[in-house]
Amino acid sequence: MSTASPAPYETSVGVTDAMRRALAASDRVHGSTSPNPAVGCVVLDRAGTVVGTGATAPPGGPHAERTALAAAGERAVGGTAVVTLEPCNHHGRTPPCVDALLDAGIVRVHAAVTDPNPIAAGGLERLRAAGVDVTLGTLADEVARGPLRGWLHRQRTGRPHVTWKVASTLDGRVAAADGTSRWITGPQARGEVHDLRRRMDAIVAGTGTVLADDPALTARHPDGTLFADQPLRVVVGLRDVPPGARLHTDGAAPTLHLRTRDPAEVLKDPAMRDVVDVLLEGGPILAGAFVAAGVVDRVLVHLAPALLGEGPQALGAAGVGTIADIVRLQVDEVRRVGDDVVIDARPASGQVW
Amino acid sequence: MSTASPAPYETSVGVTDAMRRALAASDRVHGSTSPNPAVGCVVLDRAGTVVGTGATAPPGGPHAERTALAAAGERAVGGTAVVTLEPCNHHGRTPPCVDALLDAGIVRVHAAVTDPNPIAAGGLERLRAAGVDVTLGTLADEVARGPLRGWLHRQRTGRPHVTWKVASTLDGRVAAADGTSRWITGPQARGEVHDLRRRMDAIVAGTGTVLADDPALTARHPDGTLFADQPLRVVVGLRDVPPGARLHTDGAAPTLHLRTRDPAEVLKDPAMRDVVDVLLEGGPILAGAFVAAGVVDRVLVHLAPALLGEGPQALGAAGVGTIADIVRLQVDEVRRVGDDVVIDARPASGQVW
Ligand SMILES: NC(=O)c1ccc[n+]([C@@H]2O[C@H](COP(=O)([O-])OP(=O)(O)OC[C@H]3O[C@@H](n4cnc5c(N)ncnc54)[C@H](OP(=O)(O)O)[C@@H]3O)[C@@H](O)[C@H]2O)c1
Ligand SMILES: NC(=O)c1ccc[n+]([C@@H]2O[C@H](COP(=O)([O-])OP(=O)(O)OC[C@H]3O[C@@H](n4cnc5c(N)ncnc54)[C@H](OP(=O)(O)O)[C@@H]3O)[C@@H](O)[C@H]2O)c1
Repeated sequence: MSTASPAPYETSVGVTDAMRRALAASDRVHGSTSPNPAVGCVVLDRAGTVVGTGATAPPGGPHAERTALAAAGERAVGGTAVVTLEPCNHHGRTPPCVDALLDAGIVRVHAAVTDPNPIAAGGLERLRAAGVDVTLGTLADEVARGPLRGWLHRQRTGRPHVTWKVASTLDGRVAAADGTSRWITGPQARGEVHDLRRRMDAIVAGTGTVLADDPALTARHPDGTLFADQPLRVVVGLRDVPPGARLHTDGAAPTLHLRTRDPAEVLKDPAMRDVVDVLLEGGPILAGAFVAAGVVDRVLVHLAPALLGEGPQALGAAGVGTIADIVRLQVDEVRRVGDDVVIDARPASGQVW
Repeated sequence: MSTASPAPYETSVGVTDAMRRALAASDRVHGSTSPNPAVGCVVLDRAGTVVGTGATAPPGGPHAERTALAAAGERAVGGTAVVTLEPCNHHGRTPPCVDALLDAGIVRVHAAVTDPNPIAAGGLERLRAAGVDVTLGTLADEVARGPLRGWLHRQRTGRPHVTWKVASTLDGRVAAADGTSRWITGPQARGEVHDLRRRMDAIVAGTGTVLADDPALTARHPDGTLFADQPLRVVVGLRDVPPGARLHTDGAAPTLHLRTRDPAEVLKDPAMRDVVDVLLEGGPILAGAFVAAGVVDRVLVHLAPALLGEGPQALGAAGVGTIADIVRLQVDEVRRVGDDVVIDARPASGQVW
């Protein structure tokens, strides 16, 4: 193929557009990079044509910038790197991305957000010192709420980011009086849960849910086949899980049983060392304990337009005895998904969890 | 004022626009017309200029058409009547509106929906026979879901239309563990409840709610003053309501205590004869009984982005023991109101309530 005329897939794009592509690239690898951040990078040549795209490889593999630069080759000289996170400036398992950008002849860098990790940070500073034109903040909100959300949270707080997801009826029930619960929400909403699971590093459920439902806790395509990346499955509680349970027999992903009832212990267990994104999927008692411990960072409620009137509640005791102590959230998004309604919320601003 | 040139408030409008005005006029009187329908009418002169607007007066007073025609006077000759409901064709407390339209010289009628009541119906037929150009269906959906919804339902089914409204947390609680419940939702959502109440003919609550909360069950402006029209307040249950209860002492609206636990008896009580729109406001036990009896026609959930983990549920036992018997709804609308989320739903199509 000639390098004189641009290949047909090459298009000249603006910086915002390039950042959107970088974000999309990072989203595709979200769930396979921990403990590293899922970063995306797009390299533009002098004319603004996309000449390379990259995303973080699994641990030990190249960072997003290196992959994008390798694809760009000579065309990176005098070009622009558009990257979702401030390029790293330290020798980890790979050499600093800042060096790679400078070596490649990049003259402009657009980053969405900075690295809150003092060891890795300073990348933008060093680029600026080397004469690179540096801009910070393009699509910062979308990036910080997207694939980097958990990682940024972990950098700031030292613990994994916890998303509590629950599927309930409009009256807040997660199962009928006899314990049956399949299905409350529709296929589209359930499909979204699998897309979410494959982005997570660990799925956590209590022994109650495991004993009641014998769940697989895997990330599956609509046809039932497994995604390439599966989160660690974590069971929390003192009771035994029978050896015949699906978690122990299906071989789909590793399973960890933490014999504790303390959410803090779960999050700091040595086996969770590389876990950035935790999906808490049940049940009500365990979710109540996590809320009471102040370690739920995102609440994702899948509401089915349906009523049960009896049966287990979405949330068990969370240490709230009177209305003045109600746990306030703020809604980030409300969406209709198939026949269901999804509410995406987080702790109300100012509230310390 | 001269009649030769149009007054400044007169504008030439299309039929859809005129129907929207008729709908708005009917919405303003919704709640003051039962057992008559809250109808709106706009009269346009030959040139399409609005020359009269009317809405149903309280029982015994003129219907929407007569008021609009009276305002139009001579300018109705050769003009168009745009009306939310098929004009009546029978002598009730007032003579038929069809006669009034013909006498006024109206040559075109646009109606949104027909009258399902065989005694009053036939109006469009008679107008057509008299040479009037009749069109049916303008904004039919909006009208049928709006101020006429309850009345159309009562015409079809013979019983009042029941809206169950509940304010709950994301986890389906309507009060904290100690019974405190003020406030779960924010001021905007609570304001909407008062706007809804003033459109209703009766507000129904169980003795449990009355004994726990001593509620006023009145329709109030944001400053606390009462709307001109107040719904009948209906308490349901066998226990006594103390004579000192607000419902008995504030004099804001009549209160009816029905000593029954049967929703069907409530809806057909002689004192409810003229009631078209019922707002069921609590609590969980009574709401469960209404759902179980299949007499809830609209479900309005005001969801606060908040968690309680304990406390009374939004809905009590509704006769559903297993997931196969779940009561399915369909969502008509999801709205954000202040910090809260309002879900407006009805029984799923095909389901007989
Ligand atoms: N619709 C949904 O989204 C959804 C999701 C999940 C579950 N569910 C439903 O929820 C029901 C199960 O409810 P569940 O509350 O029993 O499930 P759970 O929360 O998964 O398990 C509760 C158990 O976890 C252990 N545990 C762990 N940490 C605890 C703590 N801090 N405090 C107390 N116990 C702790 C206890 O068992 P040990 O004695 O073993 O310690 C406890 O009995 C099932 O019907 C299931 O279908 C629905
Ligand atoms: N957030 C909200 O939107 C909202 C709205 C309303 C209430 N609430 C909360 O709900 C709580 C009260 O709950 P609740 O369930 O006791 O209130 P409820 O449903 O208003 O009253 C229940 C009582 O009604 C009577 N009753 C009438 N029909 C019945 C039937 N078919 N079956 C059984 N009993 C029937 C029974 O008392 P008798 O023995 O007298 O027959 C029963 O104890 C309070 O904490 C209140 O704050 C919240």
